[in-house]
Order: sequence, then C-alpha cells, then structure tokens
Amino acid sequence: MNIIKTIGETRKIIKDWKKSGLTVGLVPTMGFLHEGHGSLIARSVKENDRTVVSVFVNPMQFSLGEDMGVYPRDMERDSRMCQELGADLIFNPEAEEMYTKSFYSFVDMSVISEGLCGASRENMFKGVCTVVSKLFNIVTPDRAYFGKKDAQQLAVVKQMVNDLNIDIKIVGCDCVREADGLAKSSRNSYLTHGERAVAPKIYAALLQVKKMVICGEHHSCVLTESFKRSMYDEPMLQTEYAEIVDGLTMQPVPQVTGQGRCLMAVAVKLGKARLIDNIEI
Amino acid sequence: MNIIKTIGETRKIIKDWKKSGLTVGLVPTMGFLHEGHGSLIARSVKENDRTVVSVFVNPMQFSLGEDMGVYPRDMERDSRMCQELGADLIFNPEAEEMYTKSFYSFVDMSVISEGLCGASRENMFKGVCTVVSKLFNIVTPDRAYFGKKDAQQLAVVKQMVNDLNIDIKIVGCDCVREADGLAKSSRNSYLTHGERAVAPKIYAALLQVKKMVICGEHHSCVLTESFKRSMYDEPMLQTEYAEIVDGLTMQPVPQVTGQGRCLMAVAVKLGKARLIDNIEI
Repeated sequence: MNIIKTIGETRKIIKDWKKSGLTVGLVPTMGFLHEGHGSLIARSVKENDRTVVSVFVNPMQFSLGEDMGVYPRDMERDSRMCQELGADLIFNPEAEEMYTKSFYSFVDMSVISEGLCGASRENMFKGVCTVVSKLFNIVTPDRAYFGKKDAQQLAVVKQMVNDLNIDIKIVGCDCVREADGLAKSSRNSYLTHGERAVAPKIYAALLQVKKMVICGEHHSCVLTESFKRSMYDEPMLQTEYAEIVDGLTMQPVPQVTGQGRCLMAVAVKLGKARLIDNIEI
Repeated sequence: MNIIKTIGETRKIIKDWKKSGLTVGLVPTMGFLHEGHGSLIARSVKENDRTVVSVFVNPMQFSLGEDMGVYPRDMERDSRMCQELGADLIFNPEAEEMYTKSFYSFVDMSVISEGLCGASRENMFKGVCTVVSKLFNIVTPDRAYFGKKDAQQLAVVKQMVNDLNIDIKIVGCDCVREADGLAKSSRNSYLTHGERAVAPKIYAALLQVKKMVICGEHHSCVLTESFKRSMYDEPMLQTEYAEIVDGLTMQPVPQVTGQGRCLMAVAVKLGKARLIDNIEI
C-alpha cells in the first residue's frame, strides 16, 4: 500500500492522476479503521477512478483532557484493509506536516456546530472544518465520503462546502453496526467486556423511539424522555445529550415533522468511551 | 466585456478554460477601479492566459457604521478599464448570490489579523478571509493578485493560503501613487478639495521616517513618534495607528531589523475617509 507522509508528494501523485483525467475520491479518517470506514472506502472505490484514504488524528479537534493521546492506532491493519478494498493511496502526515509552528488560520461555523457534540466539545468542529478544508485543498477530490453515524459532522461539512463554494460532492454513507446493533466506532475499543455487553442498549433505545414515532408520538420532549429513561435503567450509561433535531440544520425541533427530515441524535458516556449514535425518524 | 453575475456560469466558463490547459489569474476587487487595480490586472494579463476580475463590495468585511452603503461604484467605467487592460471576465455577483440566507461558515485567523486595521475594524479580516476563500473556490485561479498598499490584507491572505494548503500563488504588487505621493484608493473619492490637498502629507511623513532609518535611527518608538508629530501639524489628519511591524507576521517590533523585512504601517482619518498606507524600511 502506498503510504505517503508529505503534502508535496501526495499533491504530485494526485496532479498526475488528474492530468490523465482520472476522478478522485477521498475518505478522511483518524485511522484504526473498522467496517464503517470500510463501507466508505468501498463506495469511493466503486464511484471513482482513484481513492485516497487520509489517516490523521487531528490535534485541532481535541480539547485538553480528551482522548487524543490514547486514541487507538494500528497503521499496519489500516494499510492492509485499504489494500484489500482497492484504495490507491493512504495520506498519513505527522501533526507537524499539517500544522506548522506559526499556524494561525481556521475555518469554523455558527449554528449547526453549536449544539449536540459542539456544546460539550468546544473546538471540535473548528478543528474538523479546518482539517477537512486542508485535506480538500491537498487532495482536491471529486467526491468525499463521510459516515452518517457522525450526523452533525456530516451536516457541518455539507454546510461548509455549500457556504464556501467548495466544488466537491459530499457523500453521506449509512452507519455500519455490529450484529447486536452497536454502531461501529474506533472508540468501541475503549469498552471493557462488561461495558461492551450493555452498549447495544443505546441503539435499542433509539429503535424504541422510532417505534413510538411510527405509532404517532411526535412530541420531542416525550421522545427524548423515553430515550433517557432507557439509559437510566442501566447505571453504566450516562446520557450526555439526546435531542430531536432537523437533519440539515441540527437545530432542535419541538415536534417530529415530515418523513426522514428529523433525527434523534444522542451521546452516551460508557466507561472511558463517549459513544454517539442517531436514528432518522 | 463579459460581466457574469452567477457562480454557476462563472464556474462553467473557467472549467472550459482549464480543460483547454489555460492558466487563470484572479484580481479580487471591490470595484471603482483605479490605476492600482489596473497594475494588478495588467500583471495578471501578462502572467496568465486568462484573467478574471471580481467586483464585489463584500458586506461581511464591513461593520455597522462603516462605509458599506456609500462605497463608490461605477461598473461602466470598471468594465471599460478591464476591457482595455485585456481582462477576460468580470465576476460581479449580488450579495445574495454570495451569501445565502442560511450562511454560517467563515474563515478567520489569529495573530496576523489582530493588530493594525484588525484592531479597529473587528470583523474585517474574517470577512476578507471568507470572501477570498469563496472567490478562490469559484475561480480556482493559478495566481491571485493583491496590492501591497493593503499590507496586512496581503499578509493575511498569504498566511491563509499557506495554512490551509490552498494551491494558488499569491502575487503582491507595488502600491501605485498619485504624482504627489498619495496612495491610489477608491476611498480617495471621499476627500473634499481641501482634504485632498493635505492628504499627500501622509506619504511625505512615511518617506521622512524611511530617511531617519537610513540615517541610523532604528527605535520603533522614535520613528512612530516622528510620524505622529507630522500628523499633529495638520489638524485635519488624525492618526488611528502608526506602527513598525514585521512584514510577514504584522507583529510590532521594538526596533527595525534587517533590510526590507519591516514596514511602517499607518491609518489616518481625513474627513470622511480613513486612509491606509505603508512603507518598507
């Protein structure tokens, strides 16, 4: 697998591809790839002539006290997986390659980035917008692939691309789950055996909320209460947020309206992990 | 002259140029073009196969109470000038084309944007970075041309391009002056006859400072005092700032060091106009 550490070399390879008229897909990741990433890579390989996977644990999107230092890494396995799925290049820069000593610029956003994860993780979306802008400028892909599990991130990236006239198609891909419903996440590796056993209760509670909506319950407060009560039943699960939001603007809505425009988005703490998930309702 | 109002049409024309292997230069302006802009356009025409001039008075870089509403406009003259100089396209969008009703993203910067003009014009460089990012993404130029008269703006744009890995060469062009030394500026049109007569004293005072440096005076405080004293002599001229700064970082330096790395940058109020100027020392 072609693992490139520098911006210059990555650019050179991609410019050659573009000169030959090839299309390029980008899958931005923080590595420790799982089947969720796999589905993004497979889709990119299917839809583009060349696929770049970026593997970069972005310091700018972590705050002090978060899990930047212990974020899991396994470049060998990542590389094998990219190879098997037909990706063409892994862009895997060091932090110093991406952020020079006098780095002052940033890309950020109001409204969409402010609630949900943005409320507790102060600089997260500033870090996401900035690093994604950089990756877009380095890789200049035709399409970029993001998982719907990170629903707010997907909404933020789509908004950024629209607002700043970035000529890249953003493709949102369905969340991939374990057999028992737990959303695949690199952070699941933080879970102990006992924690892993209760983790599927998050998605089970989301499914329960969806059922309530189908049965006619449209009040957001009733639906979020239902979710939170399910979490109360298991002392290890601590709800950080559970909200019914508009799927585009990520703004809370008092009632579920329309088909598929709303999400219930949740973040739940479980041991050392903070797990996020969501469901379209 | 080809004046295009929409992003979509501009993109289409430029994509066709790029497909034919043509290089593109961009000259971003707020219109009411003068010989300063003219020198940027002429240089772009010389260095690129195609030249795009954007004419857009960017609401995002004006604060309440500033001169957004009265900023001078003369599209007919601008168009004639672009034609004569050999530009190929004027991109002249309405504000609604650039900023949709739910526009939330922005590009901004710390440090370099904070002093000088950034100190008094709070959102100016946020507006500049955001609109320049948008123009870069719409026009995708090989080179973009900015005047050295707006020294801090030039430094901010260069920093943004480096930090965010934007693959565009930023070309800084020398300030163009009236015969009596006044820096050309669209805002000179605000000056009354009497104000216009004293305006050249700004550049004269900058030349005086340069002479002091050549004669061995390197202390920033002495040099800025000299400039301010020259302004005190003329009651119509009110110094907003006068600082010796590093030409790349725009940070104040206590002493002039090295050849050509430092600038004296000034902003002076004169009637309804706020005039900026600078000199390399």
